[in-house]
Amino acid sequence: MTTPSITPVILTGGSGTRLWPLSRSARPKQFLKLTGDATLLEQTIARVDGPGFNDPLLVGGEAQEDMLQLLAGGDASIILEPEARNTAPAIALAALVLPSETPMLVMPSDHVIADTRAFEAAVGKAAGLAADGWLVTFGIAPSGPETGYGYIQQGEALGESGFHAARFVEKPDRETAQGFLDDGGYHWNGGIFLFTAGRYLQALERHAPEILAAAQAAFDAGHCDGTVHRPDAATFAEAPAISIDYAVMEKDSRVAVVPVSMGWSDVGSWDALHEISAQDESGNALTGDILAIDTANSLIRSDGPKVTAIGVEDLVIVATRDAVLVLPRGGSQRVKEIVERLKDDPAGKDYL
Amino acid sequence: MTTPSITPVILTGGSGTRLWPLSRSARPKQFLKLTGDATLLEQTIARVDGPGFNDPLLVGGEAQEDMLQLLAGGDASIILEPEARNTAPAIALAALVLPSETPMLVMPSDHVIADTRAFEAAVGKAAGLAADGWLVTFGIAPSGPETGYGYIQQGEALGESGFHAARFVEKPDRETAQGFLDDGGYHWNGGIFLFTAGRYLQALERHAPEILAAAQAAFDAGHCDGTVHRPDAATFAEAPAISIDYAVMEKDSRVAVVPVSMGWSDVGSWDALHEISAQDESGNALTGDILAIDTANSLIRSDGPKVTAIGVEDLVIVATRDAVLVLPRGGSQRVKEIVERLKDDPAGKDYL
Repeated sequence: MTTPSITPVILTGGSGTRLWPLSRSARPKQFLKLTGDATLLEQTIARVDGPGFNDPLLVGGEAQEDMLQLLAGGDASIILEPEARNTAPAIALAALVLPSETPMLVMPSDHVIADTRAFEAAVGKAAGLAADGWLVTFGIAPSGPETGYGYIQQGEALGESGFHAARFVEKPDRETAQGFLDDGGYHWNGGIFLFTAGRYLQALERHAPEILAAAQAAFDAGHCDGTVHRPDAATFAEAPAISIDYAVMEKDSRVAVVPVSMGWSDVGSWDALHEISAQDESGNALTGDILAIDTANSLIRSDGPKVTAIGVEDLVIVATRDAVLVLPRGGSQRVKEIVERLKDDPAGKDYL
Repeated sequence: MTTPSITPVILTGGSGTRLWPLSRSARPKQFLKLTGDATLLEQTIARVDGPGFNDPLLVGGEAQEDMLQLLAGGDASIILEPEARNTAPAIALAALVLPSETPMLVMPSDHVIADTRAFEAAVGKAAGLAADGWLVTFGIAPSGPETGYGYIQQGEALGESGFHAARFVEKPDRETAQGFLDDGGYHWNGGIFLFTAGRYLQALERHAPEILAAAQAAFDAGHCDGTVHRPDAATFAEAPAISIDYAVMEKDSRVAVVPVSMGWSDVGSWDALHEISAQDESGNALTGDILAIDTANSLIRSDGPKVTAIGVEDLVIVATRDAVLVLPRGGSQRVKEIVERLKDDPAGKDYL
């Protein structure tokens, strides 16, 4: 039996502000060139551009249509969500336009994967499990007791390919996370999945039928021009806005986890970007028009003005044409406090 | 005998970059609003706008003509130096256009004086000495063993008004400066002078006749349209480029120093500006569109983008439309290293 080619389903609807002032509501992280000359979305597409993969299917917001067309090139199909309803409904839309037996590799569009070979090997294992009817999630090897991710506990082994997923744990506290690492057999939930379209729809029918119904109705009342699908807004809005984890993965009995160590990062903060960036001999990651003298262990990035620093260390400095952020290294989670203050300020909204 | 009114002679030719990126070659410090709604030049003019003072006479560079006209209003006379030849020739130009008996109060245009009353009292004392033929310099009460200023040692008392200036000392090292403070009777040389026009010309004739000759020839070959004097470039260029201290004050036998404690600052660095600025309860001096959260003892200034900081302390952050500077508080002397690097870089010159 030949394995059918995999269709990459790339979720582009995210709208984070954790990389403010660079990421903005109109230009979220996936549309930024954070680690090189290509945007994270382009890198995600390139990662699955090869033998064994069909052309990708992008699922994103209506406001992003132009950007998706530009970055996806001519080969991708696009589904425009009338509004963001979290991942379970978005993936339902994708599953409904694919043949039932097609394996779907569902991926966020704003992650970095340094080790492409490890990724491909894991996809191969997951494809085998998906062909056997498993809903597969990829388990990222934890590098520390992070409290910002969900964890997956592995159960019995499924041959050489992976494990039965025994338990999903929402973001734990640090003590609990450290316990997971000490115990072993826990993985980060990186939001990457593989299953056949039919298997996902079947799981939806069983665990979240209202999502399936709303997605189907949205297609029935919507239309498709060429490669762009435009589901109907009013009917899609009736889908509960819940994640695939909550709607399906935590409930189904045949969920597998394929562990993978592939240099993964969700680039969820300026500190995370500093860690995965190329650094000079002083530990600086400098991007843009930067002049740094006697400066160490700092991330300095400009997409606008010339940024100069002298005699500083352990700083994050980010400048755009209209806004500058300065905070200590290790403190970049606090960007959200800045963003909250800007939201509360009528004049601040211009910067979001 | 009534004292003749004093003509303020304001030297506007300075071109410092110590407040880069705000101060630029085309817009040096005296044309910046550093401590309020008025530029330092406007503040300097306002300080001598009152009884006992004639309209001011501004001496500045040709490139500054438009800015001088704008800031000086209609009452000032202007002398445009064809090129910068330091203070002795600039003051010679001023002395040549004034009646011989007129007291000239010579002042830099980029200093801050917080205590105007103390300044006025010192000017009154100096005017009395100038009427008796003294070349008077104002001795700033030292607030520490600064190595960036020249020092004046006082000699015998001249009544209640001041002292004979016994010795001028160029910028000393720290140990020497500390010795001056321990000994007492030393003052900073703030570059503010008072003497009659005729007395200055007489001193030039004696100690630096080539300056007097070049200035006189520059007027003879130049022209004057209304209130703007335009000395001739070729002849003025023959004046040695030396300071009034070196050309005259250190050499003449009848030089007096009038001590004054008047909240003086030459605003010679971002740290100096931080010290004299109004600060919030956390020791921050914030100017422009700034959002600072959990930030202490920092100077943050923007003349362009919105600048945000969170969780930092003891930083200097300065942003303009095209350049950003970040350095630790106490380290602002190092701005010159940045400026040197920009000078050496063909693309960097755009920022100077």
